[in-house]
Amino acid sequence: MAARLTAEFLDNWKNEVNPDLQKERETCTFKIEELIHVLDGGKENTIKRKNLENIFFTSYVDLFSFKRRPFMSKSEQYESSVAKSVKVFELRREYNWSEEDFDLINRILNYDFALSLHHTMFIPGIERLATDEQKAKWLPLAQSYQIVGTYAQTELGHGTNLLGLETTATYDRERDEFMINTPRLSSMKWWPGGLGKSCTHAIVLAQLVIDSQNHGMHPFMVQLRSLDDHTPMPGLKLGDIGTKLAANNIDNGFLILNNVRVPRENMLMKNARVTRDGKFIQLSGNKANYATMVLVRVKIISWTKDTLRQAATVSVRYSAVRRQTTLKPGTPEQQVLDFQTQQMKVFPCLAAAYALHAQSAGLKAFLTDMSTGMVETCRRSCGGHGYLQVSGVAENMVSSLALVTIEGENTVLYLQTARYLMKQMANAVSGTKTRGSTAYMNRDLSSYTCPIDSQSDCRNLNKLRELYMQRAHRVVMGVAQRLQMDMESGQPQEAVFNNNMVALTRAAKAHLHLSTIDWYIARVDNLVATCSPALGQVMAELCTFFVLWGIVQEAGDFLESETLGLNQPNAVSLVDAFDMHDETVASALGMFDGNVYQHLYESTKYEPNNRTEVHPSYYKHLRGLLKGGQQSKL
Amino acid sequence: MAARLTAEFLDNWKNEVNPDLQKERETCTFKIEELIHVLDGGKENTIKRKNLENIFFTSYVDLFSFKRRPFMSKSEQYESSVAKSVKVFELRREYNWSEEDFDLINRILNYDFALSLHHTMFIPGIERLATDEQKAKWLPLAQSYQIVGTYAQTELGHGTNLLGLETTATYDRERDEFMINTPRLSSMKWWPGGLGKSCTHAIVLAQLVIDSQNHGMHPFMVQLRSLDDHTPMPGLKLGDIGTKLAANNIDNGFLILNNVRVPRENMLMKNARVTRDGKFIQLSGNKANYATMVLVRVKIISWTKDTLRQAATVSVRYSAVRRQTTLKPGTPEQQVLDFQTQQMKVFPCLAAAYALHAQSAGLKAFLTDMSTGMVETCRRSCGGHGYLQVSGVAENMVSSLALVTIEGENTVLYLQTARYLMKQMANAVSGTKTRGSTAYMNRDLSSYTCPIDSQSDCRNLNKLRELYMQRAHRVVMGVAQRLQMDMESGQPQEAVFNNNMVALTRAAKAHLHLSTIDWYIARVDNLVATCSPALGQVMAELCTFFVLWGIVQEAGDFLESETLGLNQPNAVSLVDAFDMHDETVASALGMFDGNVYQHLYESTKYEPNNRTEVHPSYYKHLRGLLKGGQQSKL
Repeated sequence: MAARLTAEFLDNWKNEVNPDLQKERETCTFKIEELIHVLDGGKENTIKRKNLENIFFTSYVDLFSFKRRPFMSKSEQYESSVAKSVKVFELRREYNWSEEDFDLINRILNYDFALSLHHTMFIPGIERLATDEQKAKWLPLAQSYQIVGTYAQTELGHGTNLLGLETTATYDRERDEFMINTPRLSSMKWWPGGLGKSCTHAIVLAQLVIDSQNHGMHPFMVQLRSLDDHTPMPGLKLGDIGTKLAANNIDNGFLILNNVRVPRENMLMKNARVTRDGKFIQLSGNKANYATMVLVRVKIISWTKDTLRQAATVSVRYSAVRRQTTLKPGTPEQQVLDFQTQQMKVFPCLAAAYALHAQSAGLKAFLTDMSTGMVETCRRSCGGHGYLQVSGVAENMVSSLALVTIEGENTVLYLQTARYLMKQMANAVSGTKTRGSTAYMNRDLSSYTCPIDSQSDCRNLNKLRELYMQRAHRVVMGVAQRLQMDMESGQPQEAVFNNNMVALTRAAKAHLHLSTIDWYIARVDNLVATCSPALGQVMAELCTFFVLWGIVQEAGDFLESETLGLNQPNAVSLVDAFDMHDETVASALGMFDGNVYQHLYESTKYEPNNRTEVHPSYYKHLRGLLKGGQQSKL
Repeated sequence: MAARLTAEFLDNWKNEVNPDLQKERETCTFKIEELIHVLDGGKENTIKRKNLENIFFTSYVDLFSFKRRPFMSKSEQYESSVAKSVKVFELRREYNWSEEDFDLINRILNYDFALSLHHTMFIPGIERLATDEQKAKWLPLAQSYQIVGTYAQTELGHGTNLLGLETTATYDRERDEFMINTPRLSSMKWWPGGLGKSCTHAIVLAQLVIDSQNHGMHPFMVQLRSLDDHTPMPGLKLGDIGTKLAANNIDNGFLILNNVRVPRENMLMKNARVTRDGKFIQLSGNKANYATMVLVRVKIISWTKDTLRQAATVSVRYSAVRRQTTLKPGTPEQQVLDFQTQQMKVFPCLAAAYALHAQSAGLKAFLTDMSTGMVETCRRSCGGHGYLQVSGVAENMVSSLALVTIEGENTVLYLQTARYLMKQMANAVSGTKTRGSTAYMNRDLSSYTCPIDSQSDCRNLNKLRELYMQRAHRVVMGVAQRLQMDMESGQPQEAVFNNNMVALTRAAKAHLHLSTIDWYIARVDNLVATCSPALGQVMAELCTFFVLWGIVQEAGDFLESETLGLNQPNAVSLVDAFDMHDETVASALGMFDGNVYQHLYESTKYEPNNRTEVHPSYYKHLRGLLKGGQQSKL
C-alpha cells in the first residue's frame, strides 16, 4: 500500500531548511557574513537593519506580514496599506528615524505603504520649490502629519511632455488669488499616488497665466480635503483611477479643478515669484521645477535594484530546490539549477543585481529596461508556480513594469540622452575636448583594433571595457554622421530626427551600457583591494560574467563559450548575502528554508474562496444547472 | 478666464469617433469589408459572428460586459464567471451550437468563463481516452452538464515531466477497485482549472500499480463532489490554489487523495486495460495518454493569436489618438503613431498578429514566446495608461504570460524539438532523405550564397525565405557537429546534452522561425491569387515586413533601412479588420471610437474605493494620525 499524505502532516510540517539548499550553502567558497556587511555598508548597519526588521516583522508582524496580501481585494489592500503607513509614521516619530533609516525601512517593507509619496515627493517638493518662509509654514505641518500630501503633475492626456500640461493657474489681481482650472477632459490630473482618497494636500503643477500671458509651469500648494472631516474642498472632484497591474494598495487618483481659488502665497516661489501687483519674476532656471521628478528618477533605480535582488533571491533558491526530469535515465530528478538553460536565465539576473546603481537619472531608462526583463526571466525560471501571487516574483514583475513608463517614458529618456550625445559628439569632432562619461569621443576611431587576442583576454575586465568603449564610440559616431548627411541632403530638422529615432535610441543604449559596466568594474576594483581574496574572486567573477553576458546579448554568438560560467554553488550564497528578511522576500518560493511546497500549500488557507467547503455561488448558479440536466427549462 | 470642465460635460459626453482615428480610416488603401470576410472565412461567417456577439453583448450585456471586471475582487470575478459559464452552457443547449460555433464564442468572450475546461479538456479527454462503453456512460452526463469536469495531471512538485508524477492508483483485486493516493506533499494535484470549487468530476492521471509493479501513467475518472450537495467526496481534500497574475475568475485547484476508491471500470481504458484478475494489457502506444495535452497546445496557439490581435487593436488605436510632444517647435502635439520609435513597437505586433497560426504543437514555445513579448510591447506603447487594468492590454499581457509555462514549459519544448532536429540531421547526413519541414537538411551547405543582391531583393519573399532556410540549416548543422565532437571526446551523453542546451534551444528557434514564415508566405501567396489587388498588396507588404523584422531581430543592423516600412494609414484599418467587438477588445484605450479619456474617466465609477467620498479607512486609521499631530500619544 502506498504511503499517505495525512492531514496531520500538513498541519504540522516543520520549518527545517530544505536539504538541497543546505548543500548549496555548505559548498559556498566565501564567508557570507563578509559579503552581507559589504552590501550593508558595514557590520553596524547590518545590526541596525536587523533591529528594524525585528520591529516590523516581530513586534507588528500581523500588520506587516506579506502572507495575506496576495489574497486581499483592492479595498482591503488599500485599507491595510493606510494602516501600515500610519504605523510607520507613528514609529518614525517615536524613534526619530533619520532620512537614511527611513530609506532602509522603505526597502525592508518593499515600499509597500500607501502614503509613501508624502516622504518621497511631497516633502522633498516643498524643500526644493518653496521659499524659506513657505517652508517654515508647510514643513512642520507635513513632518508632524497634520497634513499628508502628494505631487500632482501628470494629466489624463499628458505625461512626459511637461510643456503640454493644460492645467492653468490664473492670477486674479483684485482678490490676490490664483484661480486653478483643468479646462478640458485631457487636463484633469491623473495618476498621482495618494491623490484619490488619502491626501489632504497636493503640490499641483500648472501653467501660470497673468493678464492672459502664459509664464510656464509652476507649483501651487492646493488643499484637497477638509482637515476636519476629510471631505473634498469646494470646486474639486477627486477619486481613485481604478485597478492597476500592481500597487493596488495605493490610491492613485484623478483631480478636476473648477475655479479653485488659492491665495497668492500658495504658489511655491523659490524659483519664480508673482508680486502683489501681478508682476512675474523668474529667479532661477526654468528647469528647477523639474527637480522633484529628477530626484524620483534616481530613487527609481534604487527601487529597481531592490526588486531585482528580491526576484533573484526567489529564482536562485527555488531553482536549487525544484527537481525536474533527469538527463541520465534511471537517476533521481535533478535540481533545475543544474541545467544550462536554467543557469542562463538565473545567473545574468544575479550578476545584474550586484551591478545596478543609482548613478544618474539618465540611466533610469537603461537600467529599468534591463531589470524588468530580468525580473520576468526570474519569474519564468520558477515555471508554472511563478504565476501565483504567493511566488512574490509575479508581483515583482508587474510592479517593476510600472518603472518603464513612470517619471519619464523610457523611449523619451533615451532620446534625451541621444540629443546630449549628439551635441557632445559635435563638440569632440570640432576639437572641443569632451569630459567624464563622454571622454571616449576624443579618441581616434580609426586606431581601434579588437583588444581580445586570447581566451584569457575574455576574462580581462580592462580589455572587455575597451570593447564596450569602442562599441559606444562607433555606434554614436555612426548615428551622428547619418544625421549630418540627412541634414546636408536638405531634409527638415524634425524629419531627420524622426527618421533616425531608432538609431538614436540604440546610440543612447550603447553609451548607457558603457556607463553601467564602468561603474561596476570600478566598484569591484575598489572592493577587491579591501576584502578577503575568496570574496574578491567571487565578485570579480560576477562582474566579468555580467560584462561578457552584455556582449553576448548584443552580439549574439559567444553564449556557451568556455569564457562564460559561474561557480554554481555560490549562487545560493550570493542571494543569501542580500540577506533579505523572509517578509521582505515575500515569496512562498523564495524563503530562506526552501520549503516551497509547504509554503504554497499553507498559503491557500488565506484564500477567501476556501472559507467554505461549498462556495456560495454553487447555490446561486451552479446547482440549478447541475440539477436541471437535459430537462432544464430555459 | 479659462474654460471649465464641468460635471455636466463628464456626465453627457457623446460616443463620437475620435477625429484622429477617423482620419486614419479615411486614408486606408483597401476595402476593409473584404479583409474582414477573409479573416472570418467568408461573409456568412462574419454575419454569424455578429449575431453571436449580439446575443452576448446586447441581450446579456450586464452579465458579459468587460466594464466591471477590472474592479471585481477575486471572489466576485469567480462568481461572475460561474454565472457566465452557466449562461453560456444553457445557451449552447438552447441553440444547439456546433463545436466550431463554440470555438468562436470562446474567442468572442476572451475564453473568460470559469468552466471552460469542461469543453476544452474534460469532454475531449473522455473522447480520446475512454472505451466506447465508457463514452456511452460519461459523455451524455457531461454534455447535459449533469456533471462538470476537469483534467488533473500536474502536481505540486511535478509539471512538464510526466514520468515524475507521483499519484498512484493501486489495484485492489479483492474489491475490484483502484485505491488512489497522493502519497507526499509534492504529489498533490495542483493547478487544474475548475478543480478548486466548481467541478464534480476529474480525469485524474496516476501511476497504475498492480501487485507492486508500476505500469505507467493512466487516466482515472474520479468523482470530486457530491451530486446532491456539492460537498467533497470522502477521502478527498480540495480547494483553490490562490491568487494568480491573471485568470482569477478561474478556480485553479489542489486535490489530495487519501485512499480514495474507484471501481475498476473508472480507469479510462481505450489505450490500456486492467482485467478483473489484475492483468495489465497495453492496447496502443504509451504516448496516447498525452493526447489531451497535445490538443491543448494547439489551442494555445489560437488563444495566443487572439490575444495578440486584441493587444494590437488597442495599441494601434490608442497610438493614433494619443498626442504627445512635437518635433517642430510651435506646432500642435503629434499623434504618437507618427514617431518612428512608436512604429517600431507597434507594426511588428500588427504584422505578427496576421502571421500566427496553429500549425503544430511544436510551435507552441516559439509562438507564445514571440507573442508575449509583443503583447508587452503593445502595452508599453500605451505609456502609463497601459498600466491600468481598464487598458485591457495590461490583462492581455499577464494572461499571455501563463502560456509560456502551461502545458509544457517553453524551454523544455524547445529541447524536444531540438532532439527531433538532431535525429533528422543525422538521417540527412547519413544519406536518408528528410521530408516536410526538415527537407532543407538534404541540401548542400557549402553551396550557399547570399541571395540578396539588390535593394529590391529585400522585398522578394522567395529570396528572404531562402535566407531563413540557410540560417536554419547552418545553425542546426553547427549544433549537430558540436554534439558529435563532444561525444567523440568521450564525454558522457547527458553531459554533452546539458553543455549544449543553450545552443540546442537556438537551433530549435531557427527552425521554428523558418516554419512560421513559411506558413505566412504560403498563406499570403494563396490570398493574393484570389483577393483584390489593393488588399493583396497590403497583405504582401505586411508579410514582407514581418519577415524582414525577424531578420533584424536576429541579426541586428537593418532596422531603419529603407527596406523596412509600412503604409501607416493602413495600420488602423488592419486592426479594424480584426473586427473585434468593443466588449471583446475589452479596453478603455482601444475601443472603436477612440475616445480614450472619456472611457478612462467613465471607468472610475466602477471603482469600489469611489463609493463614498470619504473612505471608511479614514475613520479607522487616518483620522487619528491627522488629528493627533505632534501631540499624539504613542
